[in-house]
Amino acid sequence: MIQSKDEDKNYKAQGLHTIATILQCNKEMLYLAYEAEHALVSILNDYPGIKILDARTHSFGIGQGLTSILTLAESHASIHTYPEDYLMFFDLFTCGSFDMHEALVSDIARTFGGVAVNVQTIRRGL
Amino acid sequence: MIQSKDEDKNYKAQGLHTIATILQCNKEMLYLAYEAEHALVSILNDYPGIKILDARTHSFGIGQGLTSILTLAESHASIHTYPEDYLMFFDLFTCGSFDMHEALVSDIARTFGGVAVNVQTIRRGL
Repeated sequence: MIQSKDEDKNYKAQGLHTIATILQCNKEMLYLAYEAEHALVSILNDYPGIKILDARTHSFGIGQGLTSILTLAESHASIHTYPEDYLMFFDLFTCGSFDMHEALVSDIARTFGGVAVNVQTIRRGL
Repeated sequence: MIQSKDEDKNYKAQGLHTIATILQCNKEMLYLAYEAEHALVSILNDYPGIKILDARTHSFGIGQGLTSILTLAESHASIHTYPEDYLMFFDLFTCGSFDMHEALVSDIARTFGGVAVNVQTIRRGL
């Protein structure tokens, strides 16, 4: 368990959750765990308004898919990859005022060499 | 980074993602990090077809909200809590044949003393 100072979070219980499928990715980027996590972290770090608190990546085996999940001060981001299908699922859930979800999805798709489809943004909260 | 044996994952790139808002929760359950993570893990462990690979919980301070994220062999589950509003957001994304999302949301709501609203299940993948 990780505990941070109170100022890390003072968001209201509302935000935006974007989900996407990214097709035709670079296959290596979907199984090289260090590279995939590094790419995800680097992209999110480039956005003001996103603060990464933790990154965890689980590889399902050499050449197999992986899951990378970032805990954010704003909520979370995740990828689940399927190298055999050149595909990954992406999630970005942010509380607070961050609203650059579509630009960020485009950056993810470009970095993984793919194309984002079925991009859907859901407003969560009261 | 965690690496597991190949047999941990042989799912197709499709699944169900359920999101929910849980209102009127027991306030303590929303800020006691050990208890919240333990409850989440215990509930998911009770479901055949769900395999937890990792659990990470971040507390935003004493009496403040928390984020708990589980990496699953099937994808992920998460909660983001707001004790001041007696509210939490819940996500369960599973690839494979698991389809007991609504029952699981009910179990989560009951354990946290709340009521699930805005429950939405999205089919992801091709």
